[in-house]
Amino acid sequence: MTFTFETIGTVHSCFKEKFGIPRQPGLAPDACAVLKLEPPYSRLENLQGLEGYSHLWLIFIFHAAGGRLDKSTVRPPRLGGNRRVGVFSSRSNYRPNPIGLSVCELARIEASHGHGILHLRGVDILDQTPVIDIKPYLPWADARPAATTRWAADPPPVRFEIFFSQAAEAVLTQLPPGERTALRRLIRQVLGLDPRPAYYRHQATRTAFGMRLDQWDIRWEVRPDGIQVNDLVPVEREGDNH
Amino acid sequence: MTFTFETIGTVHSCFKEKFGIPRQPGLAPDACAVLKLEPPYSRLENLQGLEGYSHLWLIFIFHAAGGRLDKSTVRPPRLGGNRRVGVFSSRSNYRPNPIGLSVCELARIEASHGHGILHLRGVDILDQTPVIDIKPYLPWADARPAATTRWAADPPPVRFEIFFSQAAEAVLTQLPPGERTALRRLIRQVLGLDPRPAYYRHQATRTAFGMRLDQWDIRWEVRPDGIQVNDLVPVEREGDNH
Repeated sequence: MTFTFETIGTVHSCFKEKFGIPRQPGLAPDACAVLKLEPPYSRLENLQGLEGYSHLWLIFIFHAAGGRLDKSTVRPPRLGGNRRVGVFSSRSNYRPNPIGLSVCELARIEASHGHGILHLRGVDILDQTPVIDIKPYLPWADARPAATTRWAADPPPVRFEIFFSQAAEAVLTQLPPGERTALRRLIRQVLGLDPRPAYYRHQATRTAFGMRLDQWDIRWEVRPDGIQVNDLVPVEREGDNH
Repeated sequence: MTFTFETIGTVHSCFKEKFGIPRQPGLAPDACAVLKLEPPYSRLENLQGLEGYSHLWLIFIFHAAGGRLDKSTVRPPRLGGNRRVGVFSSRSNYRPNPIGLSVCELARIEASHGHGILHLRGVDILDQTPVIDIKPYLPWADARPAATTRWAADPPPVRFEIFFSQAAEAVLTQLPPGERTALRRLIRQVLGLDPRPAYYRHQATRTAFGMRLDQWDIRWEVRPDGIQVNDLVPVEREGDNH
């Protein structure tokens, strides 16, 4: 039996590529996104009362996952990339139906001409992700702190202290103070989790990496004492649809 | 944009009709279900490692909800049935994409000829519900006990003490002790939550109700001191597909 769903909106997030996205929501609290709903779902009536909730569930499509999975098992990065587990024992984006589920913080609802835009925090969702449902988070039903798990029982540790090179500091200094603090925090949160694929963790041959985060191309380097951000280059905004 | 998903399995639950289903999972811990996966998703490889988790997310279809919703607001029973809220501010089964989300307890995985059946507890899911995804519950990511909500902030109260008539006790007495205890507990949990539609709560003209629960037709009556189960009639199992 098959079921067809319609996109109700699209996430515009600071994560412009899969590399670097935290492996669950909430790990980078300053990772922001806006959810732009499509008409008629964007009408404020659809959101009436939503401002009463601090957190939301987003049910979305893993649109960049490379399609449906025909295998029964995956190798989750959290387990080091070597151990295979069943597709249903993982939150991997490779799964029979490429559906994602994330709780995120509802920062505010922006109203414009009778339509609403949701501002979200603590997301782990790729830019341009199509959303198919929003549900309020009900702590008495959804929060089961006593639930147990034998695998991935704790949040991934913050592995690295983050340093900024003189060149990177020079770029930061030119930003307005609020933006500077926000960018510094976001970079600390995202890089601190060690976004490298697991197989780089045990070999030192490659230490230089780059990623796009929000409107910045970030070049960074793994050093014995932490990660150094070497350079920050603003990305040209082509046809920005934020 | 539209996306099409395939059913990966079907829930066979004790809730044979919508009437009486608790309004979130976990409210009736003894409400059991089995999730029968379809080939090839039923292969045990797909479930490898799942036994390490105490709880699962089921993402499913509200198949009996009467179709897609064209309205922007709903009247959730939890808010008394009078107050309208936006569709995305509710967990109602009437929503633009009729997708349901429930956390439930994984009691055990039954293996049979290389295929797996999931035994679940604490469900709020209608019998014959199609499932489109299973994800492990990660307490450090999914449990946000500090999340706040202005509406439906607490679980619905247990409203009624449950009594059994002599006729109902006579039926219970004939059951094997384990089955008897389980049925009594399930009835207490489900009826105690007051499954009546909100508009019956404030008028006393109708006090007699019936519902099907698991393999039983249950007739019950609201009294000043609680609910009395008047009769328990076993349902003929036609082409039972459990």
